[in-house]
Amino acid sequence: MMLKELRERAYEANMDLPKHGLVVFTWGNASEVDRDKGLFVIKPSGVDYDELSPENMVVCDLDGTVVEGDLNPSSDTPTHAYLYRAWDSIGGVVHTHSAAAVAWAQAGRSIPCYGTTQADYFYGEVPCMRGLTQEEIEEAYELDTGKVIVEGFAGTDPVAQPGCLVRNHGPFSWGKDAAQAVYHAVVIEEIAKMARDTELLCGAADKSAADALAPQYLLDKHYLRKHGPHAYYGQGK
Amino acid sequence: MMLKELRERAYEANMDLPKHGLVVFTWGNASEVDRDKGLFVIKPSGVDYDELSPENMVVCDLDGTVVEGDLNPSSDTPTHAYLYRAWDSIGGVVHTHSAAAVAWAQAGRSIPCYGTTQADYFYGEVPCMRGLTQEEIEEAYELDTGKVIVEGFAGTDPVAQPGCLVRNHGPFSWGKDAAQAVYHAVVIEEIAKMARDTELLCGAADKSAADALAPQYLLDKHYLRKHGPHAYYGQGK
Amino acid sequence: MMLKELRERAYEANMDLPKHGLVVFTWGNASEVDRDKGLFVIKPSGVDYDELSPENMVVCDLDGTVVEGDLNPSSDTPTHAYLYRAWDSIGGVVHTHSAAAVAWAQAGRSIPCYGTTQADYFYGEVPCMRGLTQEEIEEAYELDTGKVIVEGFAGTDPVAQPGCLVRNHGPFSWGKDAAQAVYHAVVIEEIAKMARDTELLCGAADKSAADALAPQYLLDKHYLRKHGPHAYYGQGK
Amino acid sequence: MMLKELRERAYEANMDLPKHGLVVFTWGNASEVDRDKGLFVIKPSGVDYDELSPENMVVCDLDGTVVEGDLNPSSDTPTHAYLYRAWDSIGGVVHTHSAAAVAWAQAGRSIPCYGTTQADYFYGEVPCMRGLTQEEIEEAYELDTGKVIVEGFAGTDPVAQPGCLVRNHGPFSWGKDAAQAVYHAVVIEEIAKMARDTELLCGAADKSAADALAPQYLLDKHYLRKHGPHAYYGQGK
Repeated sequence: MMLKELRERAYEANMDLPKHGLVVFTWGNASEVDRDKGLFVIKPSGVDYDELSPENMVVCDLDGTVVEGDLNPSSDTPTHAYLYRAWDSIGGVVHTHSAAAVAWAQAGRSIPCYGTTQADYFYGEVPCMRGLTQEEIEEAYELDTGKVIVEGFAGTDPVAQPGCLVRNHGPFSWGKDAAQAVYHAVVIEEIAKMARDTELLCGAADKSAADALAPQYLLDKHYLRKHGPHAYYGQGK
Repeated sequence: MMLKELRERAYEANMDLPKHGLVVFTWGNASEVDRDKGLFVIKPSGVDYDELSPENMVVCDLDGTVVEGDLNPSSDTPTHAYLYRAWDSIGGVVHTHSAAAVAWAQAGRSIPCYGTTQADYFYGEVPCMRGLTQEEIEEAYELDTGKVIVEGFAGTDPVAQPGCLVRNHGPFSWGKDAAQAVYHAVVIEEIAKMARDTELLCGAADKSAADALAPQYLLDKHYLRKHGPHAYYGQGK
Repeated sequence: MMLKELRERAYEANMDLPKHGLVVFTWGNASEVDRDKGLFVIKPSGVDYDELSPENMVVCDLDGTVVEGDLNPSSDTPTHAYLYRAWDSIGGVVHTHSAAAVAWAQAGRSIPCYGTTQADYFYGEVPCMRGLTQEEIEEAYELDTGKVIVEGFAGTDPVAQPGCLVRNHGPFSWGKDAAQAVYHAVVIEEIAKMARDTELLCGAADKSAADALAPQYLLDKHYLRKHGPHAYYGQGK
Repeated sequence: MMLKELRERAYEANMDLPKHGLVVFTWGNASEVDRDKGLFVIKPSGVDYDELSPENMVVCDLDGTVVEGDLNPSSDTPTHAYLYRAWDSIGGVVHTHSAAAVAWAQAGRSIPCYGTTQADYFYGEVPCMRGLTQEEIEEAYELDTGKVIVEGFAGTDPVAQPGCLVRNHGPFSWGKDAAQAVYHAVVIEEIAKMARDTELLCGAADKSAADALAPQYLLDKHYLRKHGPHAYYGQGK
């Protein structure tokens, strides 16, 4: 069986989704890519988390074709594959239906950056993508979901905004590996709750939510103390 | 003791209700039917979940009359029985007072389909039934609850919209068996939360919630990739 | 040591408060009365739940004077004592700061009866009491809290509405014993969440919450199928 | 290794943050000071809670300079140090990103005192500080965060209002030791939820939230029955 360590890591990342409360039933999936081999490992479709194992994960090439595995891969596999093809800088992808983030996606709204919790990981908003057209949905739905995400990030560094909302659907996130993509999925759910309540509290006080936006210099400070050459958060690992 | 396996399955389904956080105390019940024998197994009334066992479940015929069991069946038994009589296509029924779904039922509102989480299981909204009249409530409350549900689904396939809200009361769901009825009860609670927050987020941005509705072609895609002859989600089981 | 069994029951009731998520730290207390002896057992003041035992519970007479116990009784003891003196029909009292119920108390609003979850236990609303005057607060705060509750229930059967909200403070509930008073405290918290979301959902649809009230005949049906001579819910115990 | 007991206490306080649901990942920190030695112990930066130990906590002097420890201290260390320098009356400091409190901080709003849950610990509101200027953020962000807090408390006793919200960021709290600072962090999160829902319920009933404020005499009663020479809550310890 190939890619033993990658299977382990992709398995662990998938198992972390229900542990963090992001997933009920089978409503989520994580994958990680091996750039040298041009292969990624992803959750099999519709399999319960307590039946997952490193061994029943599915190996696909970057076209999303199964290379090893007896089970069908996640139905979202073409989305993962497209993101890996489009963006060399990412190593892991996660999709969930976590409730607070889905609410923003369903409202068709980007999550504005109201504070440092978001700024620590997102250099700006969590953008909501345009809805897919009828043609896109009918012809190649999951592939076109990937295309709409990449289109929405034109001119934007996906490393600096490591996730988005797909309209009427839910959050996708990514990172240097599957574990970091899970981490960013948790971040999105937490800031989705915080930003929702921020707006309700502004509304209750007849205050404009626009005035609650984090100023650009706060965003710069928080994002850059964690990322880039001048980062000083953590242990410098 | 008859129907040993059916008792087991109905018991497991009932035990899953508090496990999924849908039920506090005894506020819920699940049943499953054996179509060949014309009997169903249901939770006894007002018995704590930690005192339940396959053996103390109650067996009823499709008129809701107890056929085997020392305990009174759930007070909602006539509702379950009526749904089984009216709809051959269902094999299990669940009723809960899960909080987010109850809020929609109390508001007298159907849950609009704002996204794919709902579309994966409901081909449209989760409909809220009309309120029972005073006469219906006073004469045969639980039976008439079943009649109002079936009336509300006239022209609608209960398999394609496997649940509803009873006004001022709470959610009922169903499926091919009790386990799937529980699954749909979880779906209803999750989408009740998501749809509530979707509307709050639309309101906060002075945006019409009507514009947030999932388009029909997205609904078609998601429902039909999981159901029917062209389904491709899961392992084809 | 006196009242061994009553100490056990009062202890268990207190321990159930954090178990049901109604209490953080020491923010709650439960008591149960022995009507024959004219004594009740209550939680000691400010003692952590994991340091509680049947033995360190405090025994008081109906004036709230300590009869047995080395620790100070709950600071709310005069409220419990006054309710026991005023209402022969109750056997247990509970006070918590459960979050959703406190929000209604802080808003100074009674919880309207929007559905059957409430109607099963409350024959009507969960009433919010008037605020205490400055004089009442300064002179005998905890005793006067009891007086304001009893005043608010003038003409109302406390068995049929087994709890209330004290303005700017939180819920008090009662029952035939401490365990039932805890049960009613859970009911209040659950319906507080449901009613809050009911109103938000009515607001989001520009619908009057008044139209969402449970009709009187539904209230009659649900309350009376669980209580009184014609009750048929449960096992007739 | 110095300050063995202080390391233990600071470690326990940090571990209590995720236990109380205030922290996900590494989004929080607690410290405690030894006034005699002029040293405080704080969490290392970006280290997972399950890798923490009393031994890997970091010892700093009141300028925030590391005195003992192989790891970098929390990036918020200059804020903790400044608060210890400014206020002799405090012995522990906590910072979290607990969701409900962050929402108030992001809305730029102080939490009004709507009831006794808050009044038991805060003699008034939980104040929201002014936003830091671009210069403050760019020059000495964490130090200036401390300065802005102390400036915001000019004329206010930090013991009587043991916490605040830093705008667009989140809550800071303090107490006589790290454990009490954690306690106050829990209080802030609980009252943040209660006050949010209080305002939503006032809004749903077209009622002014200003009318829901706890009257001054209730605030006096509750705060002073727990604090100061006339306190009578608890066991007089």
